[in-house]
Amino acid sequence: MTLKLFELVGIDDARPFSPFCWRSRMALAHKGLSADSIPWRFTEKSAVAAYGSERVPVLLHGESAVADSWVIANYLEDNFPDRPSLFGGAGGRAISRMINSWGDIVVNGGMFPSIVADIPGHLAPVDAAYFRKTREARLGRKLEEAAAERDKSVVAFRKGLEPMRQTLKAQPFLGGEGPNYADYIVFGGFQWARVVSPFRLLEEDDPLYAWRERLLDAFDGLARKSPGYPV
Amino acid sequence: MTLKLFELVGIDDARPFSPFCWRSRMALAHKGLSADSIPWRFTEKSAVAAYGSERVPVLLHGESAVADSWVIANYLEDNFPDRPSLFGGAGGRAISRMINSWGDIVVNGGMFPSIVADIPGHLAPVDAAYFRKTREARLGRKLEEAAAERDKSVVAFRKGLEPMRQTLKAQPFLGGEGPNYADYIVFGGFQWARVVSPFRLLEEDDPLYAWRERLLDAFDGLARKSPGYPV
Repeated sequence: MTLKLFELVGIDDARPFSPFCWRSRMALAHKGLSADSIPWRFTEKSAVAAYGSERVPVLLHGESAVADSWVIANYLEDNFPDRPSLFGGAGGRAISRMINSWGDIVVNGGMFPSIVADIPGHLAPVDAAYFRKTREARLGRKLEEAAAERDKSVVAFRKGLEPMRQTLKAQPFLGGEGPNYADYIVFGGFQWARVVSPFRLLEEDDPLYAWRERLLDAFDGLARKSPGYPV
Repeated sequence: MTLKLFELVGIDDARPFSPFCWRSRMALAHKGLSADSIPWRFTEKSAVAAYGSERVPVLLHGESAVADSWVIANYLEDNFPDRPSLFGGAGGRAISRMINSWGDIVVNGGMFPSIVADIPGHLAPVDAAYFRKTREARLGRKLEEAAAERDKSVVAFRKGLEPMRQTLKAQPFLGGEGPNYADYIVFGGFQWARVVSPFRLLEEDDPLYAWRERLLDAFDGLARKSPGYPV
């Protein structure tokens, strides 16, 4: 049964950049599944409204349409139980929900001010206008004002990663010896940044830098092969 | 085989307060195990040096001595596999290490300035002097200076709990439908605060408040029965 994934893109259909879509793309790869990409842009609300969603990712699997990266991960875990587990058991699934929120708030939210001003340049005019309007409302200031302070805000961002940094001193992945969905939750944010912004979020001696390298190399370099800036 | 747990106390032997000892005490209860308490004070280094540790908790189990709350949790999981699981599988164990670091840094470290000045009053003079000296070095200021700002620092502390707050809107415990070691990691900090300080860390409408109530009630009220301030 064919799988299809709506993925957020800008001008370049082959440059998907949503952190949430990357969570799902990595989860699919972990399960050994490929999915056709359906490029989707910010202002194409009607294309996913048919599937009961206002945003992406949306996964199509036969007659099923599944929206939201967390729901998609659970769907894949439940519908492909004989493939490598995304959570490593019931306890891992429960606690991954906390990592999911941590990834949303501390990782994606923390890097957002540093990379946001670089995003409109990747978008067609209509999407760039939509993006600027909605994100400046969220930030409470111009994108460029956020970017002007990124040398400072990135320090706070890096500090917020300390719990993960400590963890990676004890094991190579959040999932243990190998990556699992907890890793893809966090990696999705870093891949988002890599695709849209040349700004360097991590220092080379940070354990997260080496961890990110390992995930860029995972699944035959799936994420590294996707267009992006050097990290 | 008898279990014994070195637990940090002050003047009152029956008022254990270390966040790390509470992680272990709750983990023992989760496994349906009781352990005799061996009261230990900050300046009694020699009592645990014999077991290769400089601090508590230290668990004694027959010929084995196990130091460090994370190592103790793993020891209990491995040595009592037929009892309720602390991690819910290999994935849960791996990701719990991240929660362990998050608990150390964001939870314990975040509440530390708010409660630290209330601790010496629970200690004998020799321990109070040791505590003040080592903690003021860590804080870089007087305990009372930290406490004077706690109405402000507690706001930042509560904000840092947002990933857990979001999680608790979706499920009653970090462990899912029931608590597991991830919950005890975080709860240990709140029980520490409850035992030593009357300062109110959480607002009543915070989902963490109700979660803490559920854990105070767990295991026949094990934590609530231990002496402490109203929360």
